[in-house]
Amino acid sequence: MMKLEQAREQFKTIAARLKAYQYVLGLANWDMSTLAPPKGKQAAAKAIGVLSGERFAITVSPELREVVETILANKDEATRVEVREAELLYEDMEKLEKIPKEEYQEYSELQSTSMFVWEDAKEQNDFDMFAPYLEKILYFSRRFAKLTKPDMHPYNACLDDYEKGVTMTELDAFFGAVREKTVPLVERIAKDGRAIRDDFMLRTYPVDKQEEISRRLLELIGFDMKAGVMAASEHPFTNEITTGDVRLTTHFYENMLTSAMLSTVHEGGHGLYEQHAQLSPVVGGTTLATGVSMGIHESQSRFYENSIGRSLPFWEYFFPILKDAYPQQLADVTLEEFYRAINIAKPGLIRIEADELTYNLHIMVRYELEKLLLEGSVAVKDLPRLWNEKYEAYLGVTPPDNARGVLQDVHWSGGMLGYFPSYALGNAYAAQMFATMRKTLDFDGLCRKGDLAPIGAWLNENVHQYGCLKKPGELIVDITGESLNPQYLTDYLQDKFEKVYF
Amino acid sequence: MMKLEQAREQFKTIAARLKAYQYVLGLANWDMSTLAPPKGKQAAAKAIGVLSGERFAITVSPELREVVETILANKDEATRVEVREAELLYEDMEKLEKIPKEEYQEYSELQSTSMFVWEDAKEQNDFDMFAPYLEKILYFSRRFAKLTKPDMHPYNACLDDYEKGVTMTELDAFFGAVREKTVPLVERIAKDGRAIRDDFMLRTYPVDKQEEISRRLLELIGFDMKAGVMAASEHPFTNEITTGDVRLTTHFYENMLTSAMLSTVHEGGHGLYEQHAQLSPVVGGTTLATGVSMGIHESQSRFYENSIGRSLPFWEYFFPILKDAYPQQLADVTLEEFYRAINIAKPGLIRIEADELTYNLHIMVRYELEKLLLEGSVAVKDLPRLWNEKYEAYLGVTPPDNARGVLQDVHWSGGMLGYFPSYALGNAYAAQMFATMRKTLDFDGLCRKGDLAPIGAWLNENVHQYGCLKKPGELIVDITGESLNPQYLTDYLQDKFEKVYF
Repeated sequence: MMKLEQAREQFKTIAARLKAYQYVLGLANWDMSTLAPPKGKQAAAKAIGVLSGERFAITVSPELREVVETILANKDEATRVEVREAELLYEDMEKLEKIPKEEYQEYSELQSTSMFVWEDAKEQNDFDMFAPYLEKILYFSRRFAKLTKPDMHPYNACLDDYEKGVTMTELDAFFGAVREKTVPLVERIAKDGRAIRDDFMLRTYPVDKQEEISRRLLELIGFDMKAGVMAASEHPFTNEITTGDVRLTTHFYENMLTSAMLSTVHEGGHGLYEQHAQLSPVVGGTTLATGVSMGIHESQSRFYENSIGRSLPFWEYFFPILKDAYPQQLADVTLEEFYRAINIAKPGLIRIEADELTYNLHIMVRYELEKLLLEGSVAVKDLPRLWNEKYEAYLGVTPPDNARGVLQDVHWSGGMLGYFPSYALGNAYAAQMFATMRKTLDFDGLCRKGDLAPIGAWLNENVHQYGCLKKPGELIVDITGESLNPQYLTDYLQDKFEKVYF
Repeated sequence: MMKLEQAREQFKTIAARLKAYQYVLGLANWDMSTLAPPKGKQAAAKAIGVLSGERFAITVSPELREVVETILANKDEATRVEVREAELLYEDMEKLEKIPKEEYQEYSELQSTSMFVWEDAKEQNDFDMFAPYLEKILYFSRRFAKLTKPDMHPYNACLDDYEKGVTMTELDAFFGAVREKTVPLVERIAKDGRAIRDDFMLRTYPVDKQEEISRRLLELIGFDMKAGVMAASEHPFTNEITTGDVRLTTHFYENMLTSAMLSTVHEGGHGLYEQHAQLSPVVGGTTLATGVSMGIHESQSRFYENSIGRSLPFWEYFFPILKDAYPQQLADVTLEEFYRAINIAKPGLIRIEADELTYNLHIMVRYELEKLLLEGSVAVKDLPRLWNEKYEAYLGVTPPDNARGVLQDVHWSGGMLGYFPSYALGNAYAAQMFATMRKTLDFDGLCRKGDLAPIGAWLNENVHQYGCLKKPGELIVDITGESLNPQYLTDYLQDKFEKVYF
């Protein structure tokens, strides 16, 4: 067998190749969602398929296997970072080796193609246009689950890609707890909560000013614009391109005051995680210099969006700035009115416009449908009906069309079945970390001064700098002293919405 | 040996791989020049190096060689398009095989790195910052010339990359003829030409309007915005990304009325060539669906910039539109004054701002310096001095700093030594084609109506649709009945500037 020194040397070359493909595939994904012209997308999707296949070939190559096995056979001598790098690559290759390269390539092309088909389908409110693509996505998801993790329930296999170790058992319990606390509170608010005015939210807010504000918010949370880009896209997202280049998008609506701002800080939370991981003294420069799981990633974005971006202390600082930007539109609005308006808890149709309280119910709908889809117990053609029924049952609203129903989210089109629960897990992780953070940081005082740097530093020290080194479960225990506990989330929500509404 | 049928089949797979790399390398180049944040550029350059190496490996692979040789051994049976595809790939592999892959990869990384170093150096007016990169570029250019074309003068080897068949012999004669006619005319204009006012050119022209006008111009010349993108960058360029995706940039200056407009139509000329080649019934979908040489490419861009964009009939149509856009700034300007102002022939410092008449003298400076550099008879450190001396000698102006001198152009930083003569050749090809076009098209009448479609169709029919199928020399003979003849250019310039100035 190879010597450790030799393995280290060879790993450098292979890692550089993997990083090169990660760069261009990330760039292609970014470009397809922001700039690429419609007539070029088919050829681009084809190219993305080919290049995904090339990356696939490196991951399953005998060269990489030998390197990885050498490191794993020398765990005592290798560093902790090296061992974890090898473990993660080993998992990847064990999984991918079970998938034929041609199928992987075909699937990669499909992911790109179906994303732009979805965009058109959503715009034209035409589910039938998207359905055949979703069927193919589902076919591959089920097939790959069966090939790679034959002993798992196919949905657990999907979940495993986004939040290792979390299965339907944990999620059923989790959503049960959330639902039990949320639904009665939502009902009580509807019945007895105070009336909150939000007429001013839909006034005209010119987009150029909104863009300035979004840039200012990113600066405020510490996102480095020299190592990143902000742009606009249909569906906001964050994309780490390469070291020193983390990009995010937002979406500006002239008649919605807060949509872009909250999207920007949400994506900014993702972006900060990636930027800090890249600069980390622990994992920077290694393959671990990225977010560890989608649940932890969402904990960062949801933290910035909600714990900061929907908090009273933060708006004590930022509302005067916002009023300066829109003096006429906000002339008759007080801080308190504004704060209450961005926290109206009212069941709605659109997940990304949802308040913190009802948000998890939107996720539940998707969670339950994904389970059924992966099990094979419902057909794609029945999705719009089931979607609407569940919205009626959990949220009491019925989508008037599929654009505002089953077609609203990008995830399934990109093959991300099993991703949605990450949002709810993220909320729970965030609430649990938040409770710990408050023990040592004067969170409210810092927000009131607009001094968010110590908060970013806390997250960097506890989360970001580890990149993928610590597993999600390990991370949360190290930070908070206990494993994931939904009580923090439900307590936080109970406390917050009592104050907002009663 | 392989059968032709089999070779055809295998070629499809290899061509798809080559196309995928062309897509991502094009996209990366585009991104580095338009959007990539400064801190990410080093890692991106590294990745570009790796991916160029992967493409290199495909080009020199025994699989591709077998396919290509099979097609070439079956010329009678293969189609004309297939034979030409094979010939061009054969040339490529014969050349690249002589370069070690590691060096090719290192050079590719260097090209990306030195482009962003050049950008900084130009901004900071610091030649010493750029010099070591240019030295490395020069080292590789000379080395690759020697490795790949040992029997050629190293500068002829470079020229061969951009305009096959054109050597210093042709260029010396060409520039001699151009110089002989141009210099006396420039002098006569300076002495006896009428005074032309251009005070209004430097008024304030808000950029958002300029952008609208640029988009309108692209539409007018027939550039398809659904199969392309327009953006802004430091140095305007055109980049074909993939089928259905051709991108170009321009550069807006608030205090220059026509700079962006003329850049836009220049790049639009390149863009149209690529878009038409992609849709061509002759070569569309094949590896030939792109411009055949840089000289022919520049003939298209210079044609749109000058023959249309600096012509009186076109401005008879477009000047009223421009006046509508800037009614105050242009209130006191007549069409004739405007037309003369965009045709002021006066030696200046900056190539891309030069008029048609003195433009070729700017190229001569670069041509002579490139020859000396490649020969090894001057050192990089002496370039600024020599540059300034030649500007003094040919144009009578002395750059006050290197930013407006030797650092003004992007080309050398990207390794494009030998490209500059393409501009002058382009002017000559364009003038020669223009003379032929006028025989069958009412060019002036069409321009006056703003009906540029028949002109685009003529260029498509005679040039664009052939992509790389016909060699540059073949193309010009087929169109005009004779080979490249600088007389068309000198006659055109003489005639035009007589009218403008006397």
